[in-house]
Amino acid sequence: MEAERFADLPEPPYYAVAFSSQRTAGDAGYGAMADRMVELAKAQEGFLGIESARDASGFGITISYWATAEAIERWKADLEHLVAQRRGRDGWYARYELRVAKVERTYGFRR
Amino acid sequence: MEAERFADLPEPPYYAVAFSSQRTAGDAGYGAMADRMVELAKAQEGFLGIESARDASGFGITISYWATAEAIERWKADLEHLVAQRRGRDGWYARYELRVAKVERTYGFRR
Repeated sequence: MEAERFADLPEPPYYAVAFSSQRTAGDAGYGAMADRMVELAKAQEGFLGIESARDASGFGITISYWATAEAIERWKADLEHLVAQRRGRDGWYARYELRVAKVERTYGFRR
Repeated sequence: MEAERFADLPEPPYYAVAFSSQRTAGDAGYGAMADRMVELAKAQEGFLGIESARDASGFGITISYWATAEAIERWKADLEHLVAQRRGRDGWYARYELRVAKVERTYGFRR
């Protein structure tokens, strides 16, 4: 189970998109679209991995990892993703904040 | 409630520490120490904000934001924080991955 939650990433440098969001109440198609977006992101050139956690209050953080800044720009402009972004603003999210960052170094621990 | 979950950050550039972790079962003092670490981090020079989400499976992501890479190094070396880090490896976490990144740009949305 653990292995599925952690992204298996190369040595830095690479890029991260940290997406913090507060969901509105109810599903309204969100779950299916979120699954589809992960599937679609995984198929993008330069996609490296994704990690996500959302608590019972509906606040969540998803971090996707990318080989280059250009790969992030292509994903941002993907047509099906643009439709999902619009639907997110139209109803699924009360608020979100997205930060694009360059990963410089990493540490890890496994029992 | 929302406002408390999102960090109120300046314009980039600044730094982010993304900490993904899988908790072991039981509290064993974790909750109190986690609260203390947030309190202590907030008092550090260069601390900008923190966001955190953990789901029912015990997988969580915490992102702390910092003005400079040096502020992160000081926080990493804080004595009380070092004790917490040790206790984390000794029992609280089954696994964690920490990535230090430089935030280059941001987007946001509020209903």
